Amino acid sequence: MNKPQVPDFLKNIRVVLARPSHPGNIGSAARAMKTMGLTRLCLVEPKVFPSEEANVLASGAVDVLENARVVATLAEALADVTVACALTSRRRELASPLLTPREATPELVARARDGEQVALVFGNETFGLSNEEVLLCNRLVTIPGNPDYFSLNLAMAVQVMTYELFSHTGFAVDYLKPEGEQATLAEVEGFCQHLEQTMDTLDFFRRRNGERLMRRMRGVFARADLQRDEVDILRGFLKQVNRALGPDNNGR
Amino acid sequence: MNKPQVPDFLKNIRVVLARPSHPGNIGSAARAMKTMGLTRLCLVEPKVFPSEEANVLASGAVDVLENARVVATLAEALADVTVACALTSRRRELASPLLTPREATPELVARARDGEQVALVFGNETFGLSNEEVLLCNRLVTIPGNPDYFSLNLAMAVQVMTYELFSHTGFAVDYLKPEGEQATLAEVEGFCQHLEQTMDTLDFFRRRNGERLMRRMRGVFARADLQRDEVDILRGFLKQVNRALGPDNNGR
Repeated sequence: MNKPQVPDFLKNIRVVLARPSHPGNIGSAARAMKTMGLTRLCLVEPKVFPSEEANVLASGAVDVLENARVVATLAEALADVTVACALTSRRRELASPLLTPREATPELVARARDGEQVALVFGNETFGLSNEEVLLCNRLVTIPGNPDYFSLNLAMAVQVMTYELFSHTGFAVDYLKPEGEQATLAEVEGFCQHLEQTMDTLDFFRRRNGERLMRRMRGVFARADLQRDEVDILRGFLKQVNRALGPDNNGR
Repeated sequence: MNKPQVPDFLKNIRVVLARPSHPGNIGSAARAMKTMGLTRLCLVEPKVFPSEEANVLASGAVDVLENARVVATLAEALADVTVACALTSRRRELASPLLTPREATPELVARARDGEQVALVFGNETFGLSNEEVLLCNRLVTIPGNPDYFSLNLAMAVQVMTYELFSHTGFAVDYLKPEGEQATLAEVEGFCQHLEQTMDTLDFFRRRNGERLMRRMRGVFARADLQRDEVDILRGFLKQVNRALGPDNNGR
């Protein structure tokens, strides 16, 4: 199976970092974005940018940093955006309903797919977003977590939110799956009968409840979700057992 | 609303880092775990541990490092475990079905809730898990992401997987929501009629399709999901408008 392409509409989703203090976090955020197929980064009044430290932490995502837009105000970063999600972990006296990333994401993906511009807005490492910044956004998103230790690093928050977005794109991971062929029910049943015959030949059912025993065995191999070549291996083994038992019991 | 407690059964879920090379990643992983309510860390043959670097990056999660178990083999780390998830981003010739974190998590939460021991197993930063290590696990999990740049940092992978777990615990984020009371439909309708009367008093409907206009307004305030005190503000405003129009038009 070929490697699929990341959906094109992800370019309509930008990550906005408002007043980030630590250049390392900018680099880690760029890396986090790129692992989830996002490329558009916008920095509002970064303390230090560009920087060597950001480049080092961006690892293979330096292109995201090179193409980053630097602006003076959050309003500027959001001018062409229809939906801006403020990421916050504080309780706010604001009337927007507070959504989890999972609740917020389907709408964001649908809008980006329709060609609208969507922004994920993250605040400063220490202070988060100011109330003024939150009011420039029209969605409020909080990442669920331990209420006694909610110390999610900025880049970690970017990673979680972009992971959540990516997981709603319907982009399959099938290309990573091995290509083995699933055995059919008839093949599995053929093997089970072969097993039953072999057990019978060995007189294995004597003083045992053969019917119940075979029910359990059928359960085992049903749960095992056998592949075709695994059935072949198992039946090869049974054949060899039958052969070893001598010509009178030559099995199938 | 009081801060709820993290569910107790999360103590039955451990994070296992197999042969981690960079002490900083151990610290960041500990922090990531704790943000999602996990506390049990097991390290298989860590290159450097304990270390100052890990403590610094663990931030407020040094307790997770202090309680970490260090073992010599992955088998030892998993001895009392019933379900071990191998996190992998490589295509494997193994027959376990490849699950996304979202697919894998409900079972993990259910088993931990039942008192079974569950493990999330992460490999070395550079090499990932060996085939031998994967074979000690009975689930295979891959985090979906950009196939052209799948460079998820170890601690980021821990963050995503533990976020996914936490989000399946049914642990609400409601305690972060402001306590405002939602307006009832009757209250919203009362306001809409007040608005209609005010518009009518102002002769605002002249040369306009009043019915259609009010339909649009009702749509606006339905979408706005008004809180009770917001209805009060809006009606206060309308009252003042009516008052300013003089005694003959004193509104309600």
